Amino acid sequence: MTGNTFGQFFKITTWGESHGRAVGVVVDGVPAGLEINKELVENELKRRRPGQSSVSTPRKETDEVEILSGVFDNKSTGTPISMLVWNKNANSSSYEHLKNLPRPGHADYFYLKKYGIRDYRGGGRSSARETVGRVAAGAIAKALMETYGIKIVAHVLELGGIKAKKLEFDKILNNLEKTPLRCADLDAAEKMREKAEHARDMGDSIGGIVEIVVKGIPAGIGEPVFDKLDADLSKAIMSIGAVKGVEFGSGFESSKMYGSEMNDSFVIENGEVSTETNNAGGIIGGLSTGMPIICRASVKPTPSISKIQKTVDLSTMTETEISVKGRHDPTIPPRMVPVAESMVALVIAEHMIRSGYIDPDSLM
Amino acid sequence: MTGNTFGQFFKITTWGESHGRAVGVVVDGVPAGLEINKELVENELKRRRPGQSSVSTPRKETDEVEILSGVFDNKSTGTPISMLVWNKNANSSSYEHLKNLPRPGHADYFYLKKYGIRDYRGGGRSSARETVGRVAAGAIAKALMETYGIKIVAHVLELGGIKAKKLEFDKILNNLEKTPLRCADLDAAEKMREKAEHARDMGDSIGGIVEIVVKGIPAGIGEPVFDKLDADLSKAIMSIGAVKGVEFGSGFESSKMYGSEMNDSFVIENGEVSTETNNAGGIIGGLSTGMPIICRASVKPTPSISKIQKTVDLSTMTETEISVKGRHDPTIPPRMVPVAESMVALVIAEHMIRSGYIDPDSLM
Amino acid sequence: MTGNTFGQFFKITTWGESHGRAVGVVVDGVPAGLEINKELVENELKRRRPGQSSVSTPRKETDEVEILSGVFDNKSTGTPISMLVWNKNANSSSYEHLKNLPRPGHADYFYLKKYGIRDYRGGGRSSARETVGRVAAGAIAKALMETYGIKIVAHVLELGGIKAKKLEFDKILNNLEKTPLRCADLDAAEKMREKAEHARDMGDSIGGIVEIVVKGIPAGIGEPVFDKLDADLSKAIMSIGAVKGVEFGSGFESSKMYGSEMNDSFVIENGEVSTETNNAGGIIGGLSTGMPIICRASVKPTPSISKIQKTVDLSTMTETEISVKGRHDPTIPPRMVPVAESMVALVIAEHMIRSGYIDPDSLM
Amino acid sequence: MTGNTFGQFFKITTWGESHGRAVGVVVDGVPAGLEINKELVENELKRRRPGQSSVSTPRKETDEVEILSGVFDNKSTGTPISMLVWNKNANSSSYEHLKNLPRPGHADYFYLKKYGIRDYRGGGRSSARETVGRVAAGAIAKALMETYGIKIVAHVLELGGIKAKKLEFDKILNNLEKTPLRCADLDAAEKMREKAEHARDMGDSIGGIVEIVVKGIPAGIGEPVFDKLDADLSKAIMSIGAVKGVEFGSGFESSKMYGSEMNDSFVIENGEVSTETNNAGGIIGGLSTGMPIICRASVKPTPSISKIQKTVDLSTMTETEISVKGRHDPTIPPRMVPVAESMVALVIAEHMIRSGYIDPDSLM
Repeated sequence: MTGNTFGQFFKITTWGESHGRAVGVVVDGVPAGLEINKELVENELKRRRPGQSSVSTPRKETDEVEILSGVFDNKSTGTPISMLVWNKNANSSSYEHLKNLPRPGHADYFYLKKYGIRDYRGGGRSSARETVGRVAAGAIAKALMETYGIKIVAHVLELGGIKAKKLEFDKILNNLEKTPLRCADLDAAEKMREKAEHARDMGDSIGGIVEIVVKGIPAGIGEPVFDKLDADLSKAIMSIGAVKGVEFGSGFESSKMYGSEMNDSFVIENGEVSTETNNAGGIIGGLSTGMPIICRASVKPTPSISKIQKTVDLSTMTETEISVKGRHDPTIPPRMVPVAESMVALVIAEHMIRSGYIDPDSLM
Repeated sequence: MTGNTFGQFFKITTWGESHGRAVGVVVDGVPAGLEINKELVENELKRRRPGQSSVSTPRKETDEVEILSGVFDNKSTGTPISMLVWNKNANSSSYEHLKNLPRPGHADYFYLKKYGIRDYRGGGRSSARETVGRVAAGAIAKALMETYGIKIVAHVLELGGIKAKKLEFDKILNNLEKTPLRCADLDAAEKMREKAEHARDMGDSIGGIVEIVVKGIPAGIGEPVFDKLDADLSKAIMSIGAVKGVEFGSGFESSKMYGSEMNDSFVIENGEVSTETNNAGGIIGGLSTGMPIICRASVKPTPSISKIQKTVDLSTMTETEISVKGRHDPTIPPRMVPVAESMVALVIAEHMIRSGYIDPDSLM
Repeated sequence: MTGNTFGQFFKITTWGESHGRAVGVVVDGVPAGLEINKELVENELKRRRPGQSSVSTPRKETDEVEILSGVFDNKSTGTPISMLVWNKNANSSSYEHLKNLPRPGHADYFYLKKYGIRDYRGGGRSSARETVGRVAAGAIAKALMETYGIKIVAHVLELGGIKAKKLEFDKILNNLEKTPLRCADLDAAEKMREKAEHARDMGDSIGGIVEIVVKGIPAGIGEPVFDKLDADLSKAIMSIGAVKGVEFGSGFESSKMYGSEMNDSFVIENGEVSTETNNAGGIIGGLSTGMPIICRASVKPTPSISKIQKTVDLSTMTETEISVKGRHDPTIPPRMVPVAESMVALVIAEHMIRSGYIDPDSLM
Repeated sequence: MTGNTFGQFFKITTWGESHGRAVGVVVDGVPAGLEINKELVENELKRRRPGQSSVSTPRKETDEVEILSGVFDNKSTGTPISMLVWNKNANSSSYEHLKNLPRPGHADYFYLKKYGIRDYRGGGRSSARETVGRVAAGAIAKALMETYGIKIVAHVLELGGIKAKKLEFDKILNNLEKTPLRCADLDAAEKMREKAEHARDMGDSIGGIVEIVVKGIPAGIGEPVFDKLDADLSKAIMSIGAVKGVEFGSGFESSKMYGSEMNDSFVIENGEVSTETNNAGGIIGGLSTGMPIICRASVKPTPSISKIQKTVDLSTMTETEISVKGRHDPTIPPRMVPVAESMVALVIAEHMIRSGYIDPDSLM
């Protein structure tokens, strides 16, 4: 496998399996002089941690991070920042019986086709635990972006078909962490919780939609041909397990609109050129428009369910049944929120450096 | 600007502006021994060419390709293949009055913010003419894939809200080029044509949805973390101008499904492991499943419309109006079909080489 | 073949064979606003052109460049700059008899091993004609560097064992083009000419040493681990055909020195930190020191010689003899000077952008 | 800083400072199924470890490696292999007084120019301790190469001007580890030891030449334009601190040879095409010839010497003196041997995968 590195200018390399010794990340390309400490990173790791509520797995992960390099006197030095989180509380024996039974909706069988060998303990590298490295790196990218006035926030927009009301950015920010659902519409959140619990009780799971909003990005960021800002964001978001679709601004709706509806008219606002609407979702021709970036990801229901499903026994090549026991989230979107923010932050940091807005060597 | 190169193993670099001397592409990474000739490339270029029907611009482009290197005795030699198409029939003077009037829905103003200078003749580098290079390269990627039994077909699934019926792959293949709409449901195609013509007559435009299907890809292709096959495909497709969303398999629908509905059960078929359904759209955990890859792109309505729109005059910084005259497609999806096929072919070729299925040096 | 692209931030992709239709290059990453015209590029192409004197091949190449994209009103626009030079006066028939006879010192046989097919006309892609693209791109890189006060000059330091005297930078600059030898020590140049002509008359060839000097580069440019400035320069220079060694500052001599002799002491000069000597050749720990960069390349004698050599006939797998007729340079270094300058300019431009000294988007 | 990643197909990312918590590496691109265990890696780490003899620093580093991911049941799984070595016995206080005194021959001052901040404890990231990650990764690359019959061996060819006799490959292999000098000519080794000890006693240091030999590589490996095998090897070797020159085969000597002497004639040997001599050092036109690759690196004397040297005090910007106390190697080449082997192994592994000789996913 290669493909464990993301980015060129703000580059991360993640490593680790769910039931290996540890998981971690090396972040290369952080300019010198950024304030970094354990708390900054752990605050984000806490948000992705399971065991927080009835809508997430009761597994406990303390997820204490060790920052092993690249930071001196709480400041980045310009050298690569290596971070790791030890794996604890990982009971591999519960996976032994799955060795020959590929779980539907999981990559188990396809890993085997690719590598001829598979670490069958808990999904191995394809486990959601891999996102620990993404979120640790994302914490740094977000901190870097905030020094440039750029705020990146994700929230649950829809869960199991229940839609949240459209809310202002500040309201989203304010309500985001009020419930474990990470849905800013608190009424909708309550209904989502009920639906998720119901699915869990049935041995089933539900999906949803996560929306990511970026405020404060200047106009003209991105590269206009292949490395379009929305192209890179799409790759980043589709690289998160369970995401099956991504859209910007009016997204799939735009396929039904007239040009005269879709186009965002140019206007003068406070002496500056701006657009009247934001159907584009903040990106046109691969370049940021200066309006907020609005991006939505469709997340499939958790594939690990205890309901009986059909599968095959690879040792005998016969059809059989499987029930995926264990501690699994009945729905993914609430815990995906910090992962989505992280991936978006990485892409924005990358393009801000690449476009020359941030000195790649030093903030000092 | 950088970002004009796509791929690492099957790598293309496109260049050229709509009203410059020529447009072209360098294709690097074609193994030696592939049959390549002018016709192969021009057959695909013809498909993207305007002036073909009432639903595309009446501009004439002959688009004769010159293959300048990398082919000897009609066979690739392993060296880079450089191709160009001269620009003709380009009337730049019609753009002179747009110099200071950014067109809504276009990247004009954002280029200016990025570069401080802009080739205002017909969109310059952000023009759809840039896709000539993509399609020429895609023709080679598709030919390479066909030698491995992989077929890549795109078609118009929806236009201006009119949906095509779901059809079998062979039916799609058979009907694809029967109408300029490139919709395999011929009844729907007729309604789409009417809607597009009506929009054009109103000085307006419509959007739609393009679906891309890949058949014959083996299981286990892709890289399971950041360079997931669907992540790379998403980037490729979102890098096409006017695309605002992308989804695989059940896509955005999957957000509303239960896990027990969404998961594709494993079954034995002809002695091989297969899946009963294909909600995944042929990709799980970033790896191909062996089922057809199903991908859909939402395409916004053509931004160039003759209807009056609001804009600003950059020379005076005052609000004004604009009507984008000229020969523009009333809808983009039919002409995007070969571009979408090309981008998908490039990604599949990349990953087939990267996974070791194709010898990178030679087919001989 | 891949590997026809060099650089990430100032990226070039070359293409073309010696006896194909044309050779060329796409330059991606030139910031908008740089003055570029045909003369700028052709002045450098003229310097690498053969047929200039008794010490180079009498082949005539006019090498008129066509700039096909990326320049508008004589200024770069930030989009990729595509340039080509048509191949003329290429007599392929003279190579027909070499189809099965690999030339000693050439890559002919090893291409065949790699690709299973070979464009045997005049070396194909491995011909020195490939450097046309490098020099055209280098002309732009050098022009960009000069706007930042950085001057890059190569000269012949030794030829056939005849050493030039050590001269001041200005003297080198002044004398460089006075003789076709491109040796600034005019007495030595005369002896070199005699030696090269004598070798030619014997059906033989000689090698030499090219030195490249970079003045005006600020301190702290480069990346200190793998992408050290001297590591990247070494790759760039070793990628020129016929180079067999590269060294910086005291180079191979430094292996015989004591630490107390080799270390360049720090001193204060005009209120700035500087070094007393420059044994490091302007680079320490992969970073520029602010002193001139001094780099030397060892160039082997031209492998194409008319003297009888042993080779094998691949069609019969028997040993035989070969005499490489045709118009070949009796020595390479004088014509390599602009190629070496170009490769160095590309690396310096790359690192100046990468270190944030140059805005990647625009000079305006 | 970026530039801590090397390779694309067999990719390593190193991290860590000499006086930070740990140093380490992530290796991405190891095919599944390779035997890997702690001993394999530690055997190589032992070779680079200081404290082994009178010619290396008496510092003690136990260098126990932790393999944190990518290995299951002693076999690589195809996922990234993360390894770390904790830093112990690191006395940072001895560096406090150097905070404002840049050491001649070191990168201290140039880091400060680049980053505006510097981890002044023992060289930080520019310390030789960074090579722990290279050697750990190199151990895996060498093991992979050995399964393909490729052997990579470095040895000290010259030290302080004392030259070793030219010896057969097997003799080099046999004698290599017999003395701490890693010079296969044992008489020369004894003289080198005396010279190194004498230099150390004078508070000084000496340099030398390391030769690397690769046996068993097939013909046709490499990419013939920019990513020539010798170009990539040059970058790899020049990226090792203290290397000031690199050459292949006849190297700098070839600049003084005639073409008729330099060219390696083709002959038939055991029914195969081979060359009679190996002046090329196993690489022509960027491709391996099938003959052994012969590469030499010139290594400068250790810059850390206790002899008084001139430097400047950055806090007062006045000239002053410095004596670099502490436990330093009087000469670098003997300890560089495993580092040089590692860098070469990485490049060879990269190109073997890239050329399609090794399945990138799996050996199984």
